[in-house]
Order: sequence, then C-alpha cells, then structure tokens
Amino acid sequence: MRLTITKAEQLLQKLHANPFFEWTTVIIILVSSLTIGVKTYNLSDTALSAIQFLDWLITIYFLVEIIIRIIAAGGIRPFFAAGGWNIFDFIIVAVSLIPVDESQHALLARILRLFRVMRVIYFVPELRHLILALISSIPRIGYVALMMFIIFYIYGVIGNVLFEKINPVLWGDVGISMLTLFRVATFEDWTDVMYETMAVYPFSWLFYLSFIFFASFVFLNMMIGVIIESMSETQQQKDDDGHKAELAQINQRLADISAQLKQKQ
Amino acid sequence: MRLTITKAEQLLQKLHANPFFEWTTVIIILVSSLTIGVKTYNLSDTALSAIQFLDWLITIYFLVEIIIRIIAAGGIRPFFAAGGWNIFDFIIVAVSLIPVDESQHALLARILRLFRVMRVIYFVPELRHLILALISSIPRIGYVALMMFIIFYIYGVIGNVLFEKINPVLWGDVGISMLTLFRVATFEDWTDVMYETMAVYPFSWLFYLSFIFFASFVFLNMMIGVIIESMSETQQQKDDDGHKAELAQINQRLADISAQLKQKQ
Amino acid sequence: MRLTITKAEQLLQKLHANPFFEWTTVIIILVSSLTIGVKTYNLSDTALSAIQFLDWLITIYFLVEIIIRIIAAGGIRPFFAAGGWNIFDFIIVAVSLIPVDESQHALLARILRLFRVMRVIYFVPELRHLILALISSIPRIGYVALMMFIIFYIYGVIGNVLFEKINPVLWGDVGISMLTLFRVATFEDWTDVMYETMAVYPFSWLFYLSFIFFASFVFLNMMIGVIIESMSETQQQKDDDGHKAELAQINQRLADISAQLKQKQ
Amino acid sequence: MRLTITKAEQLLQKLHANPFFEWTTVIIILVSSLTIGVKTYNLSDTALSAIQFLDWLITIYFLVEIIIRIIAAGGIRPFFAAGGWNIFDFIIVAVSLIPVDESQHALLARILRLFRVMRVIYFVPELRHLILALISSIPRIGYVALMMFIIFYIYGVIGNVLFEKINPVLWGDVGISMLTLFRVATFEDWTDVMYETMAVYPFSWLFYLSFIFFASFVFLNMMIGVIIESMSETQQQKDDDGHKAELAQINQRLADISAQLKQKQ
Repeated sequence: MRLTITKAEQLLQKLHANPFFEWTTVIIILVSSLTIGVKTYNLSDTALSAIQFLDWLITIYFLVEIIIRIIAAGGIRPFFAAGGWNIFDFIIVAVSLIPVDESQHALLARILRLFRVMRVIYFVPELRHLILALISSIPRIGYVALMMFIIFYIYGVIGNVLFEKINPVLWGDVGISMLTLFRVATFEDWTDVMYETMAVYPFSWLFYLSFIFFASFVFLNMMIGVIIESMSETQQQKDDDGHKAELAQINQRLADISAQLKQKQ
Repeated sequence: MRLTITKAEQLLQKLHANPFFEWTTVIIILVSSLTIGVKTYNLSDTALSAIQFLDWLITIYFLVEIIIRIIAAGGIRPFFAAGGWNIFDFIIVAVSLIPVDESQHALLARILRLFRVMRVIYFVPELRHLILALISSIPRIGYVALMMFIIFYIYGVIGNVLFEKINPVLWGDVGISMLTLFRVATFEDWTDVMYETMAVYPFSWLFYLSFIFFASFVFLNMMIGVIIESMSETQQQKDDDGHKAELAQINQRLADISAQLKQKQ
Repeated sequence: MRLTITKAEQLLQKLHANPFFEWTTVIIILVSSLTIGVKTYNLSDTALSAIQFLDWLITIYFLVEIIIRIIAAGGIRPFFAAGGWNIFDFIIVAVSLIPVDESQHALLARILRLFRVMRVIYFVPELRHLILALISSIPRIGYVALMMFIIFYIYGVIGNVLFEKINPVLWGDVGISMLTLFRVATFEDWTDVMYETMAVYPFSWLFYLSFIFFASFVFLNMMIGVIIESMSETQQQKDDDGHKAELAQINQRLADISAQLKQKQ
Repeated sequence: MRLTITKAEQLLQKLHANPFFEWTTVIIILVSSLTIGVKTYNLSDTALSAIQFLDWLITIYFLVEIIIRIIAAGGIRPFFAAGGWNIFDFIIVAVSLIPVDESQHALLARILRLFRVMRVIYFVPELRHLILALISSIPRIGYVALMMFIIFYIYGVIGNVLFEKINPVLWGDVGISMLTLFRVATFEDWTDVMYETMAVYPFSWLFYLSFIFFASFVFLNMMIGVIIESMSETQQQKDDDGHKAELAQINQRLADISAQLKQKQ
C-alpha cells in the first residue's frame, strides 16, 4: 500500500512543480481578491449569487491546492519544516476557510476573505524579498521610533497643558495632543492649529517650529542612516568577493617568492 | 539615373548632418508647441488666422524634414532599422499630420498637434538618456507598485465596509475608497477624513496611522533600494575600469617573476 | 572606618552593575513619564491621589538610585569626570526634584517632571549614539541654515513691502512675513496666500514660485551633501580597516624580497 | 611721491589682512540688514531717525571699506582680476549706494539696501562653496527641468481644453493651467480641484493620478541621479588619491625586482 501512496505523491509533486499549476493559483488568488472588491459596488442579485458561487469554487480550489502541496511535501511536518512561508500561507488559507455568516458579521467575513490577497506574497519571490527587507529594517528604525515617541510625548504634554483651554478638541488629553502633533508633522492645515493658539500666546509659533525642526531632523537623520548602513552592507559584500581575494592572492604569491629566494640562499 | 539619385542623397545627407538644419528643426518644434499654448488665450481673429497659417507652414516643414531624413538614411527600411527613436519620431510626425476638423473635435486636434512637443526628446540626446533611465527603472518599481496595490486594496475594502455609511462620497465603493486613501497618503486634508470617522469610531485613527505607516514605509524602502541598486551598478562599472586592470598587471608580473625563479633552479 | 565604607561601596558597585537594577530604573522612568500623561485625562480623586503617592515613591527611588551611582563611582568628582552623560543625568534628576506647588504653577511642575523621560536616553546606548550623530551634523547644517535665513529674510522684506496692504495679518512685519513664507515652504494652503496677492499683482506667482524653487533647491543640496559626506566618512573608515592593512603587508614583503636580492648580488 | 603711496598701501594691506577688520565688516553687514527688517515694524520717530543716521554711517563704512580693499589689491584692475567674488561684492556695494528717494520709491530703495545681506556670502567661505555647488548642479538639473516643462505643458493644454468650462479660474489658459498643475504637484488642496472636475468627467482622476505619477517619477529619478553623480565624483577623487597610487607603486617595485632577476641571469 505504501507504494501506491508514493505513486500518488510523485504525481502530485509533478503537478506541484508544474509552472502552469502555480500560475493558475496566482490568477485564482487575484480573481478571489477582486470578487471582494466587486461586492462593494451595487450589484444585481444574479451577479451576487454568481460571485457567491465563484467564492465556493475558489474556497474548494484553495483547499485542494494546499492539500496537494502538503502531500507533495510528504506530510504536514515536512511541509511546515520547509520554511516560514509555508506556515504563513497555511494560516491564511485556514483562516479564510472559517465559516462566518456574512449576513451577521459582514466585516469579519470580508476581512477574512480579503487576507487571501496576501497569498500573492507567497507565490511571487520578489514580494517575499521585499517583505524580508522591510522586516530586517525594523530594528534600525526601532530606536528612532522610540526617540520620535519621546519628542511627541514631551511636546504632547506641553501642548496639552498650554493649549487645552484654547481648543480641547485638539489638545484635550495627551493622546489627542500627540495626534494633533502628527497632523502638524504632516503639514496638514498646521497653520490653522498655530494661528488659533497664537491669538492667545503670540509666541506659540516657537512651539510648532521647534517641534517641526526636531521631528524632521530626527526623521531625516534616520533616513540617511538607513541609506548609508544599507550601502555599507552592499559594499562590504562586494569587497569580500572582489579586491580582497585578489590582494590576498598577491600576498600569498609574494610569500612564495620570498620562500623560494630563501631556499636558494 | 541611379547616379543622380545618389547625388541628391549626398546633398540631403550633407543638409541632414548640418547642425544648422537640426537647430532649425528644434526651434520650429518649440514654435509649433507654443502656438497650441497661445491658442488657449483669447486672441483676435487676425492672430488666429496667422497661427492657422503658421500651423500649415510647420506641418509642411515637418513633412519635408522627415522625408529628407528618410532619403538621407537611404530609404524607409534603413531609416527604421537605425533605431527605435526614428520610429518614435516618425509616428509622432505621422500622427500630427492626421487631418482633424478642429471646429468639431477641438480636443483631439489639439492633442494630436500637442504631441509634437515630444519630438524635442528625439533631438536632445540628454532627454533620450533620461527617458531610457526612466524606462529601465520600471521593473524595479513594478513589484513595489504591486505591494502598494495590495496595501491600498486591503485598506480600501476595510475602509469601504467600515465607513461607507458615514460618508458614501469618500468610501462608497472600493475604487473611491482607494482614491480617498491616495488622498490620505498625500496628506491632503486627511484629518478632515479622519475626524469624520472618529466621531463614529473613536479608534479609527488606528486605521489611518497604520495605513500611512505601511504606505510610507514601503515607499521609502523602495526609494532606498533604487538608490543603492543604481549606485552599485555605477560602482561596478568603475571598478571594472579602474583597479582591475592594475591588479591584473601586478598578477602578470608576479607570474613572470615566479617563472624566472623556477627557471634558475 | 575606611574599610567599612569600602565594603558598602563594593556592595553598591555590585548593585549598580546588576542589569536587573538598570532595567528596574528604565521601567520606573517610563512609569514616571506615563503618570504625567495619565494626569491629562479626567481622573477620579482616588486615582489622582494614587498617582500623587506613586510620584513620591518615584522621586525617592530616583534620589536613592543616583546616590548609589555616585557612591559606586567613588564620589561626586569621579562621577562627573566619568563623562558628560553622567552630568546630563544628574541635572535632569536634580531639576525634577525642585519642589514646585502644582496648584499654582501647574505647567512648570509638569514640565520639570516631564523631562525625566529624557533619562531614558542615558540608559539606552543606541539613543545616546543617535543624539551624538544629531549633534555632529549641526555644523554641516549650520551654514545651510544661514543661507536659508538669508533667502527667507530677503523674500520676507520684499513680501512685507509688496503685500502688507493686501493682508497685514500675513505680511504685517518681516517676522510675520517669514512665518508666512515658512508656511508656503511647507506647501500648507500656500495657494490661498498666492491667489490673494495675485488679485492685486497678477505676476506675484513669480514671487512664490521663485521662493519655493530657491528654498527647496538649497534644502535638497544640503540633504545630498550630508548624505555624501556621511558616506565618505563611513567609506574612509572601512578603507582604513580593510585594504590598507593588506597593501601595507604586500609592500613590506616587497621590501624584504628587494633586500634579499641585494644581499645576494 | 611713489614711496609714500606704497607706505599707505602697506598700511591698508595690513589693515585688510587683520581678521578684526573682516569681522567688523561682517557684523556691520548684519546690522545693516537688520535695520531694513526693523523698519517693517511700527517705530517711533526717534527710532526711525536713529536708523536713518545708522544707515548713513553704514553706507560710509562700506564705501571706505571697499576703497581700502581696492587700494590694498593695488588698484581697480588687479582687484577685479583677483576673482569673480570681488566683482560680485563691488556690484552689491555700488548698487546699494544709488541714492533713491525712499518716500517715493520705498520698494526700490529697500530692495537695493536689502541686497547688502548678500555681502555675507562674500565674507563666509562656506557660503561661497555652497553657492558654487548650487551653480554647478544647474546643468544636471537643466534637462530634467526641460522634461518637467514638457510634462506640465502637455497636461496644461489638455487640462485647459477639458476643464476650461468647468472652472476658468483654474484652467482659463495654458499658463494658469500649469500653475494649477504645480499646485496639484505640491499636493495643495488638489482633491478640491479633482472632485470639481470629477463631477463632470467621472474618470478625470486618471488625469491627476497620471500627472502626479509622471511628475514625481521624473523628480525622484533626477534626485537619485544627482546623488549618484555627486557620489561618483567624490569616490573618483578619493580613488585617485588613495589605492591607485599604492597599486602603481607595487607595480613599479615588481618591475624593479624583475629587472634585478634578469640582470643576474
């Protein structure tokens, strides 16, 4: 009996390795994602039930597809052991299979299905690289985020104490003050906020300008830091491949020549 | 008879190679483009008919000019074979010659003539380089655009489901939601959009701030990636020109010395 | 008696070197900062007095903690001599101990306590590096700031002379004019400012566009300059570590070979 | 008589070379610039006449100072021949000496005096370097500006033809259309412009989004291009100074050793 399973496994592995199978899946993912978008438009009942039917087909296809992949990998354990992306994909498929009554929990049902669009990340290697690059830049950005938070927090409390009585909607507590400061940092109607407080405290422009200066200064420094660090790494790799090996070889040859000369003496 | 044609060809090649001829064409292109702009102002009838007459002259000049270039190249086929830019230029001239009744299809007629300004790209090599650089950066940007689309799509559907009843003009369907999100990404009166939904869902600032964070994070990473990639390429080229030749020569000399030492042993 | 003090010192040094002690302090700093933020919300009297009590505890902890650090360092003088960050931390703790009657000078009392959040910078080395990097980029930026000031000043005076009668709120004196120009530089409702003056001087868009051009041109050049300078420095350091050692060794070997050859002649 | 003049010359050269003389001039330039700014505030008559008197003193000082510099250089001709910055400074001083009746031509009189602030550029070498760097980046930016103009022009004409009837204030002629497009490019209330035209042409968002895409794409490419070009130049210089010389020296030594080995054979 073991033999027959192996035969089925081989068949599924062939199917799985077939680029046609992969492309079909990618297209079905995109179609699946589009149906959720299409539902946001006013549709006739016929179209809605057609989409409902399509949804069922897609769900079944996804179920079959992941089972094929699991069998082709040789079971659940090797499938998960093959890398984090398999787990990522499995969770998305599993979550999108949770039966939610759409008439009652429309939001939840749609969002669960919506996450299927993230399966594209699994199938397009360039997107995986992009995600990994984004994740790897988090530690660098973490400390700058902490620094930013300190700046926002200090200005948030000062803004709350100074301007609460002028406009409690914008400066009512430290949370809402920090949201207002984020608005100022994006330059979104920030002069309206400033002119309002300048009517009471004529020198409050100092508060805003110093905040904009500090926030953008820290942000720019982070940007430049990230660029330089990434570049150094790229450079490092190339150097290790390139001249260093060449110079080491030259060094080795010179050592050989020295040794030959010594032998002759 | 073949000889006389060759003589005409030589004359036209001389004319074509004359920088004066080229500069005249560039100036006429600019004049031609300006006339379309001038027409958008309120003009007297005399001025309008003068422009009409000028337009005819320019059309005839362009026709003659491209025929000269084709003959100088030795026929249509070698002219097209000489490079994509010739085809680009030929299409623009051909399209701008299509007779369109301006009284009926004002927009179409003007746009066809307007594209003549793109002939400048053909005549200024620096602009050609710029266009090629832009085209070559498309594949790098393509995947980031896909990633951006996924982010916009997910937030678009969530925004539509959550906020449709609050403001159908901004969140009516997934398309209009994504347009609203693009507005938020450009920081254009985004707080108005946010305050409106915060009145119903006080925690909806999380939706906007997380969206701004993800969108700008992906965008900045792309920017930095493009800078570093371009730089690596430039570096690579220079390295190939520079140290490599010197190092190869050093290596060659070492091989010679080693050989000499071996001979003596 | 000297011996017993030394024993106490050793005990305190052990305590100070204990990472648990350090982490406790960082957490207490964050709690201390959060209490100031929490106070900006409407709280019950019980909560307020609990925070008041917590505040006392934190103040006592900070006092004890810095005394331990001073004794562990071997006195006030070696503690200060150990580096500027000790002084920075000491001043923050000392200032936050100043007793201010919160009912009368609420702003001052809160801001003094608020600065405690900056103690985090002392305890997180990455934040110290960030601060030092920011300080080291000041001289580079100083001259660009001067250049910017000259541009803002010239446009400020011209704007005041030309537009004062149109809108004295925006162009009343050179100070308010420069604030308006900063608003224009952040693109914040700048067309409203422009359309208003264009109604009187139709060509005043030249004023705004040339200002935006100069300001962003100088700003971008500064940005690029800072990036390149930082990168050169990083490169320089790596070069000193990398190739230079290898090249020096090659040179040394060559000198040896030359000497050997000379000896034999 | 020649001898006495030489003595005066030597005295003035000493004075000119004195750093105290230079710093005095810089401070007087700044005071001179500030008086123009101070005048924009409401002042008492006493203050105004004090400023008037100060203005006279400054004008006389500038006159004396430039005469000293000219004599120290050995006459007008060597003074001008010493470099473009002397001419730049001379013109500013000369222009600021033109007597203009301030009661009649307030704007002209103030602007002429205002340009004195640019004398600071002459006295601070770092600002001169900055100005030269800005000027040297013009050719690189020139072609991108041309490309940008072509994009703005094409979209300007299309916008005028399509939207003129919707809002002639924004799209009345090609000039005003390009100004509106610049507004869109700075993201300043661009959705107001878009929503207005979308009411008539629902697909006009394509016009705005494609414009924003092209404009920012060209702008970013230019930015990146400038960064990379500047960096290559910096790198080039360092390479020429650094390893290249070292590698050439190694090459030379190897050639010497080869020659010595050949001699012995």
